[in-house]
Amino acid sequence: MPSPTYTPLVASLPSTVPFVGPETQERANGATFAARLGANESVFGPSPKAIAAMTEAAAEVWKYCDPENHDLRVALAEHHGVRPANIMVGEGIDGMFGYLNRMIVEEGVTVATSAGAYPTFNFHVAGFGGRLVTAPFVDDKEDPDSLIDLAKREGASLIYIANPDNPMGSWHQADVMENMIEAVPEGALLCLDEAYIDFAPDGVAPKIDVTDTRVIRFRTFSKAYGMAGARVGYAIAHEDLATAFNKVRNHFGVNRVAQAGALAALADQDYLREVKAKVAASRDLIGQIAAENGLKAMPSATNFVTIDCGSDGVFAKKVLDGLIARNIFVRMPFVAPQNRCIRVGTGEPEDMGLFAEALPAALADARGG
Amino acid sequence: MPSPTYTPLVASLPSTVPFVGPETQERANGATFAARLGANESVFGPSPKAIAAMTEAAAEVWKYCDPENHDLRVALAEHHGVRPANIMVGEGIDGMFGYLNRMIVEEGVTVATSAGAYPTFNFHVAGFGGRLVTAPFVDDKEDPDSLIDLAKREGASLIYIANPDNPMGSWHQADVMENMIEAVPEGALLCLDEAYIDFAPDGVAPKIDVTDTRVIRFRTFSKAYGMAGARVGYAIAHEDLATAFNKVRNHFGVNRVAQAGALAALADQDYLREVKAKVAASRDLIGQIAAENGLKAMPSATNFVTIDCGSDGVFAKKVLDGLIARNIFVRMPFVAPQNRCIRVGTGEPEDMGLFAEALPAALADARGG
Repeated sequence: MPSPTYTPLVASLPSTVPFVGPETQERANGATFAARLGANESVFGPSPKAIAAMTEAAAEVWKYCDPENHDLRVALAEHHGVRPANIMVGEGIDGMFGYLNRMIVEEGVTVATSAGAYPTFNFHVAGFGGRLVTAPFVDDKEDPDSLIDLAKREGASLIYIANPDNPMGSWHQADVMENMIEAVPEGALLCLDEAYIDFAPDGVAPKIDVTDTRVIRFRTFSKAYGMAGARVGYAIAHEDLATAFNKVRNHFGVNRVAQAGALAALADQDYLREVKAKVAASRDLIGQIAAENGLKAMPSATNFVTIDCGSDGVFAKKVLDGLIARNIFVRMPFVAPQNRCIRVGTGEPEDMGLFAEALPAALADARGG
Repeated sequence: MPSPTYTPLVASLPSTVPFVGPETQERANGATFAARLGANESVFGPSPKAIAAMTEAAAEVWKYCDPENHDLRVALAEHHGVRPANIMVGEGIDGMFGYLNRMIVEEGVTVATSAGAYPTFNFHVAGFGGRLVTAPFVDDKEDPDSLIDLAKREGASLIYIANPDNPMGSWHQADVMENMIEAVPEGALLCLDEAYIDFAPDGVAPKIDVTDTRVIRFRTFSKAYGMAGARVGYAIAHEDLATAFNKVRNHFGVNRVAQAGALAALADQDYLREVKAKVAASRDLIGQIAAENGLKAMPSATNFVTIDCGSDGVFAKKVLDGLIARNIFVRMPFVAPQNRCIRVGTGEPEDMGLFAEALPAALADARGG
């Protein structure tokens, strides 16, 4: 019995998953993680007002969502000082990266990113047959100059950068990013991933200019707003580009309950400030725990801290495995030299206590093993 | 300032929406619909146990979903007597149609469907550059023989059919569908949309044989399970095909709260039976209301009833407009001759009362206008 006829591109792709979920590891380990610090989630959760809004909306889940995401787009436009036509809402940044790549990438199209930057973006580049070219991190930062040079040299149509960065937690000031936008080669588009921008100090986000067709920026309710499981991300862009998502997107794709939750979360900026303060305190604590163990925590403008384990990727992987074995869910960068580090999410004091308890043993194992 | 460089295919696509949402109409009308009967949603809502599960899960929405949808796939596999590897869960059937088309369709690939069948499927065919060929409905049914003949004649790689059908509510018995599967041309795949199968009498669903690589069937929590806003659909297919979605899908795309809700909804088959009984009673009531107005309701194996307005598409559109103007949200088929009808969702007795009240006036307007 013959199989379906896949496109040559899809036939050539592996069946893959960009990230193995912690639930998969839990099933394999036969134990639930005691601290869930590996996926850059916000253990502080969403605003209670968002939870209340979701609870209320759950009873109305028999209704499809508003495919225009109208109310949320109006609120986001107000929040950012742009027009609703400049906002496109989608099923998380991951889903929107799929749409963006689909709009621009096909076989023969080149995309530039940093070696070790966000793998789900790369998954979508490959998924549409693009040629991915990479520049190394410089000083543990995605490097705008390297990326622009690379894009020019290789003729890239799309350039990816995250500011602040994942997995290193590093960042550039707004003027560096504004200069990068100015340097985008003609016909190319800068995909500026600002998933972590809410955690960054003032002066890191470049100013929003929606008349500029050279950049599209992505924001999310998954990080500071504590709603990773809701799948609500959005793009801010020139109206033409924001509207172009309508050519390809799953119009009814955003969960209705999530729409209500995101709207309420956005309205509760006081709660967001509380979360940011808790994240900052937890970052300091992770730095302190690292130092107590003779390790160096990298500066971070995100809700995680990347810890330099002081050796190579093999050693860091042993430390990681030691933490996983002690039911602490963390992850690590996957490209050298960043993979000398482990990446630890901020959390409640209990989470930090569990991490502090497990780290010395994991290090001892790694050194002894 | 230059625009981004879209692929030629995407540049050629219109910015569109397969369906205008009722919220858009409400904003335009400046009034909320009194009865929401146009999107084949289930006004009966989900199981209270599903609402409770979603309420509980809302507090944990800071966690990403399990990208494997493991627990739900295990439960669905048990429910259908297949293995979890035969189940793929996605962001509603709409989202999964996008993935399926992406796997099979590119420029030069032909897809067969019925003229006036589900437009979102066609949106995805066009979105991946496919050539869509259509066979007419026969006796207000999507016609398996016509579709198979068309697919053979035109060399289609993908064939779409819904059983029961939307927008007519018609259906074929299982043996007709089983014969259709047997007749699928070599190298082609039958996309069997069973979104409404839970409302159909016994003997309508062809037997599930996951060793058969010629068919993929789609089910949903949007209809009988009353969770349209949750975005949870799934495919049942040969393991190779179900797994192939991992090449292209948004792995973390399903809302975590929705996963929990779907799991609880599936477990409450008693509630599903209650909904089916309410839907059947409401179908009868719509038939009665139609008859009282001199119109003929089509037989239905779905949660809506399509009413033949007895004339052409222009007349039916006037009736539709008259209902919309009276704050009754309904829709209609969009291709002749099916567009002589309006499509009315089942609902609570209050909904039916509102519809019964509005219909005579809408008909009078249509006849007089």
